[in-house]
Amino acid sequence: MIVGVLGAGQLARMLALAGRPLGLDFAFLSPDPDSCAAALGRHICADFDDEAALARLAADAAVVTYEFENAPLAGARRLGERVTLLPPAPALAAAQDRLEEKRLFRALGVETPTFVPVDDPARLADAAGRTGYPAVLKTRRMGYDGKGQAIVRDEADLEPAWTRLGGAPSILEAFVPYEREVSIVAVRARDGRTAFYPLCENTHRDGILRLSVARPDDPMEAAAQAGARRLLEALDYVGVLALEFFQVGGRLLANEFAPRVHNSGHWTIEGAECSQFENHLRAIMGWPLGATDPIGWAAMVNFIGTLPAAAEVLALPHVHFHDYGKAPRPGRKLGHATVRADSAEDVARIVPELLRLASS
Amino acid sequence: MIVGVLGAGQLARMLALAGRPLGLDFAFLSPDPDSCAAALGRHICADFDDEAALARLAADAAVVTYEFENAPLAGARRLGERVTLLPPAPALAAAQDRLEEKRLFRALGVETPTFVPVDDPARLADAAGRTGYPAVLKTRRMGYDGKGQAIVRDEADLEPAWTRLGGAPSILEAFVPYEREVSIVAVRARDGRTAFYPLCENTHRDGILRLSVARPDDPMEAAAQAGARRLLEALDYVGVLALEFFQVGGRLLANEFAPRVHNSGHWTIEGAECSQFENHLRAIMGWPLGATDPIGWAAMVNFIGTLPAAAEVLALPHVHFHDYGKAPRPGRKLGHATVRADSAEDVARIVPELLRLASS
Repeated sequence: MIVGVLGAGQLARMLALAGRPLGLDFAFLSPDPDSCAAALGRHICADFDDEAALARLAADAAVVTYEFENAPLAGARRLGERVTLLPPAPALAAAQDRLEEKRLFRALGVETPTFVPVDDPARLADAAGRTGYPAVLKTRRMGYDGKGQAIVRDEADLEPAWTRLGGAPSILEAFVPYEREVSIVAVRARDGRTAFYPLCENTHRDGILRLSVARPDDPMEAAAQAGARRLLEALDYVGVLALEFFQVGGRLLANEFAPRVHNSGHWTIEGAECSQFENHLRAIMGWPLGATDPIGWAAMVNFIGTLPAAAEVLALPHVHFHDYGKAPRPGRKLGHATVRADSAEDVARIVPELLRLASS
Repeated sequence: MIVGVLGAGQLARMLALAGRPLGLDFAFLSPDPDSCAAALGRHICADFDDEAALARLAADAAVVTYEFENAPLAGARRLGERVTLLPPAPALAAAQDRLEEKRLFRALGVETPTFVPVDDPARLADAAGRTGYPAVLKTRRMGYDGKGQAIVRDEADLEPAWTRLGGAPSILEAFVPYEREVSIVAVRARDGRTAFYPLCENTHRDGILRLSVARPDDPMEAAAQAGARRLLEALDYVGVLALEFFQVGGRLLANEFAPRVHNSGHWTIEGAECSQFENHLRAIMGWPLGATDPIGWAAMVNFIGTLPAAAEVLALPHVHFHDYGKAPRPGRKLGHATVRADSAEDVARIVPELLRLASS
């Protein structure tokens, strides 16, 4: 059976590596001839809105999924008329628009930072009056890895921020003096069963995830699960979803969700009984979910822009290397390494070594 | 970097699945256009002794390895003149010939069952005088999965057995009333470092491995490791090697070795810190070895001839499915499942369920 994937980057690649042992073949649609997943399936090299390419993807596939939330919605919806598209299109729609996303959170009783929609620069000062300073101006669409965002420290920053983001419809959001960023990776099966991986503590640099540490039995786990569960059920979701929060005091404020496997869940390949990639495939195929229990302790470090030599990474104990096979480019996610060990102390001892390799 | 592989079956496939995350690409040489590893790399579809194909494999590869010990030795040696071939050709030579193999065991002080070379049917009775009855007549070459063997219960069986095996040069071996069959999977790096996975207890049916159960801290582990270590060092071996024994009383009698990743090591994908597949690649690439420590308890069941539905396998707790993507055929290894859990009891509880699926 063939799983069709919109996108052919590292998430698609890791889906294929998880899916091959399950007997699944893969077809990827992406416009980049050098897509790093291409070697692991059939690559339909075309734009995401190419009608003929979408038809080919649908014709071959038992189910179609996507590896990024900015897949053109119209194309995804047309795909969904021809073949089962999972996660369902409404999840994609909500995740593509920061305003819809935040309104959905609110409607579900999931707390968020204060936000105000801004379509018109004349309304910026009003909006800032409600959020206070500092605030963050974020375009409603096409934001990821810190893109489409600008910090606003005072009134003088408002107009330049608006211009910098191209005058696109945006939201102004209160800047949250968070203590930490956490995420929860969840999965929902076709039959409605859900499962949750342990909460993950995330550190970003320049807007890009740098480090994720799994925190089994974190005190905020129940709150994060409750939010994710509401989202999964409201969207009649099938597949893996990641929900990111800012933690402020004892509260979690939802920042955004990703309707797909997520960078903060890469540690589950070695650190959980069934990885997020396998569980996403199990869910969309209508198969029973695998256990999300952690196996010991784990953390993941991203390699961004440059990749250390394999021999250096593999010399570290308890470490698993993931080279995505991508050409180096500043700011590009080229790989990651996961450290998994039987004690949190061992993980904590090795993470700085990995961060050193990631920075060199 | 490209790893060349002689063979493109499930072992090659699992090598590729382990190697892709390490940044390795693969080229496979095999004559079967439907080879199940082909989708995971470049497939050079040609006979193993095809000079031009061997040259193409060598030209592309940083190192060449093999997934089966019956690769034509002359071709392998010619490859070795052009590119690094690992494990080294002498290991391949010894493993291809049961007589050389057993003589090597003896020379290294590794006990074996009594064996007598037989090139001439007129010498069969003499040989049986030394082994006693029952005995097993085994061709020196091309034996695997119980092929090339015939049980000899008394003198009347000798001639028919000889005829059935085609009159090929053989050995007559004392039939060992073993209590169990065990194997040890070992790995040796280019720098001479060695590591050993826990001893594995194996059950065969019709000559084909059916069930392997990892036995961490088995009382025979030290003896098995000592034998494997002598073999690794004598052959100046690089890569993964499996050594199989019969256990009789407190003694291990070496049966055969495989100069490659081995079916009794498949459980290491989920059940050990670094799998036999990754460790084979680390070794032949000259990278540091990964830890061979078990993670909890594990067992593996082969699916032979027929493959259960994925949904049935995945409904079992703690189970990992491996569908090799091969067309069903009686006696053919089509896949396996590994159960890994934190207790030996959980593993023991689930193995019968897997065996039931494997038999249905």
